[in-house]
Amino acid sequence: MSYIDEFLEFLSIPSVSALPEHKPDMERAAQWLKARMERAGIKDVRVFPTGGHPVVYGIAEAKEPGAPTVLIYGHYDTQPADPLDEWVTGPFEPEIRDGKIFARGAADDKGGVFPAIVAVEKALQGEGLPVNVKFLFEGEEEIGSPNLKAFMAENKDLLRCDLVVSVDGGMYSREIPSITTGSRGLCGVQIEVQGPKQDLHSGGAGGAVNNPLIALAQIIASMKDLDGKVLVEGFYDDVVELTPAEREAFAKVPVDEEAYKELAGVPELFGEPGYTVTERLWARPTLDVVGIWGGFQGEGIKTIIPARAACKITCRLVPNQEPDRIVELLTRHVENHTPRGVRVKVTAFPGNSRPYVIPQDHPVLGVMARVLKDLYGREPVTVRLGGTLPIARTFLDVLGTYLVFFATSSPDENVHGPNEFFRIEEFERLVEGLPVLLKELAGVLRR
Amino acid sequence: MSYIDEFLEFLSIPSVSALPEHKPDMERAAQWLKARMERAGIKDVRVFPTGGHPVVYGIAEAKEPGAPTVLIYGHYDTQPADPLDEWVTGPFEPEIRDGKIFARGAADDKGGVFPAIVAVEKALQGEGLPVNVKFLFEGEEEIGSPNLKAFMAENKDLLRCDLVVSVDGGMYSREIPSITTGSRGLCGVQIEVQGPKQDLHSGGAGGAVNNPLIALAQIIASMKDLDGKVLVEGFYDDVVELTPAEREAFAKVPVDEEAYKELAGVPELFGEPGYTVTERLWARPTLDVVGIWGGFQGEGIKTIIPARAACKITCRLVPNQEPDRIVELLTRHVENHTPRGVRVKVTAFPGNSRPYVIPQDHPVLGVMARVLKDLYGREPVTVRLGGTLPIARTFLDVLGTYLVFFATSSPDENVHGPNEFFRIEEFERLVEGLPVLLKELAGVLRR
Repeated sequence: MSYIDEFLEFLSIPSVSALPEHKPDMERAAQWLKARMERAGIKDVRVFPTGGHPVVYGIAEAKEPGAPTVLIYGHYDTQPADPLDEWVTGPFEPEIRDGKIFARGAADDKGGVFPAIVAVEKALQGEGLPVNVKFLFEGEEEIGSPNLKAFMAENKDLLRCDLVVSVDGGMYSREIPSITTGSRGLCGVQIEVQGPKQDLHSGGAGGAVNNPLIALAQIIASMKDLDGKVLVEGFYDDVVELTPAEREAFAKVPVDEEAYKELAGVPELFGEPGYTVTERLWARPTLDVVGIWGGFQGEGIKTIIPARAACKITCRLVPNQEPDRIVELLTRHVENHTPRGVRVKVTAFPGNSRPYVIPQDHPVLGVMARVLKDLYGREPVTVRLGGTLPIARTFLDVLGTYLVFFATSSPDENVHGPNEFFRIEEFERLVEGLPVLLKELAGVLRR
Repeated sequence: MSYIDEFLEFLSIPSVSALPEHKPDMERAAQWLKARMERAGIKDVRVFPTGGHPVVYGIAEAKEPGAPTVLIYGHYDTQPADPLDEWVTGPFEPEIRDGKIFARGAADDKGGVFPAIVAVEKALQGEGLPVNVKFLFEGEEEIGSPNLKAFMAENKDLLRCDLVVSVDGGMYSREIPSITTGSRGLCGVQIEVQGPKQDLHSGGAGGAVNNPLIALAQIIASMKDLDGKVLVEGFYDDVVELTPAEREAFAKVPVDEEAYKELAGVPELFGEPGYTVTERLWARPTLDVVGIWGGFQGEGIKTIIPARAACKITCRLVPNQEPDRIVELLTRHVENHTPRGVRVKVTAFPGNSRPYVIPQDHPVLGVMARVLKDLYGREPVTVRLGGTLPIARTFLDVLGTYLVFFATSSPDENVHGPNEFFRIEEFERLVEGLPVLLKELAGVLRR
């Protein structure tokens, strides 16, 4: 079986961490990884149960004793696949079209996890490893890693390392390699608005009771102005403003706003006034409604005052915003802006994540720059990640170890949306590049 | 088979006009009615196809020639039954509990239609009918009667009559009989907001593109203020304000606001400032969101900028608002309040209905008052209907005939919501009362 065939097999396991009905698939994916890692010559491979989905661990030893240790981090869980009807082929029926492998999780992050195993297998079968390599693959990244911090705290010795290399993440573009120096945090709440105790006839009640769908819309509208600025009281209080030097560095990153607009399919880009697109994506917090529902969603019309409405809100956070504090501010804001005649409940989602930044003078960043230049034939740019890696900050907080990103994913791969894909070419680039990185790291990490 | 058993059989047919999958059930319900009417001795019973669901017609002749003609109007279609999980027993598995018959359509309006057939059957088997009785039962009332006006226009001779008696409607309460002198009109639109062409990762796009769910919330919030006043430009322009005499008459109707609050299960009543609850329900227009959806509605969290959001809005209208004009105003308002960075589409629902009022000095109102007083042992009050009878106005416009309501339904029957029911006692009252009304009408309608 070729590496690609094996990868397709891995992708066909619907390891959706958010949906309870996929719990058996999560276990299956973990066991699949364990078997494959053992076949690669990785030692001490273990599937650790957690309060949620399992963690997969293993270690491959350096050819020489006393070598430093690099821990490779990735995740084998995926986002849910809906809306299903927008996929050209089934999300868990991987198909190769035009050099691209289409499947949920192909890029995020099975396409990071699997090539890393292959790269280490090749090194073990060839000249040996210049560093000890530990593997930590989790199954809850897409739901905010609710159990990983506790797992790490309980297994500090097992996980001890000199650097974490994340194969989750991505390059600024396929042509422009990048060094990611930070990622945004995340928190979220669900807002439920209760009007009448059950749906009422809008003829008999329209004009006498408040409508929870309208009340929810009014609450949401109170949270963000028409220009995209968040209006939640205190939301920006702890945000560290960018220095002029940082803004200058960001400005050097080429941004094709027209191409971005076209890729997204929007009439115009949009966001908080006073900041460039990259500043907004990397160093400004956001507030988004990711789902909303209430009342009659079928075909045609139903003349009711619905009983209830709800929405899910997530915020992307930047230094030094604290997720718990933001949840508190959101809750207070909703309470202060709930219209009369309805009841409201705000529930925080588990799995908050703090934002993360690596010091600009960390020696590993120089190594990354050299390796990426060789691999891509071009100087990398320095960026941050608009998304969240829940554990980037946790490794630092729990193990005292910094994390760098080494992932060949690129931004056009429909990550989290329908028709996610990963290019075979980028798969190969990761398999080829990881051993080079490990060799270079052996130099700067040597104690 | 008893009348009640037959009624349960009728109720077990899921004649939901709004849902295409129930089209065969609509046909089945119409054929069931035809067979039952023929068995009752009604002549010339016919099931007329329309562009949508069929109309059932029949005639029972007066015992004496030259008698006036009363047309009995009702509908055999029902609202959809969702949310299904809130029903104690299946919506189309009728069950009698505590003298109440629970089923979708039990009150609205199969509990009007079926007793009317029984009442006429009894008269035909007994002393005969004092007037000619025509029957017109439609199957599209719950979707706004899109085909009935055309049907009436094409069958004017067949439907010619001196008065229309609607068995759809209801009494002010079980104890207080009422004469309904008007009903509100209805119109509705669907608003669809398109953001990115597909769901985007909120890490990669949060801060760069507008969120269609937030944009939709902002559009909705722009339509109604926090006190319940509609803000759509021009919305109230054609509303005929109540005269001091009308406000006085309305004020005589006993309203137990505490009981209403408890029945609805809301913390407080709510609506347009400056009007009493009855004024708001009977003589003021409303704007309500009856359904909203977009993005991820599953369990847990999904970190996306969703591609699209939508909502359904309906308005209850009062004299002299014109539905088409209101749809126009809604559309223009949405266009003027669409945030940047998204695209919006407004679609009108078919089946608009104009509001209806009968002149306060029409002689039939005196007959109604006498009959109701006998039947209930109490003077009726004069009210309007907060709901919509799409054809009340159409009979006047097409046939030139006024319509009165004779229906024993009461407001606590969960009409349009889960656990709709109709009391056996009210079923009997309709069977008993209708022949008395027809006899009295024979007097005032005699030419």
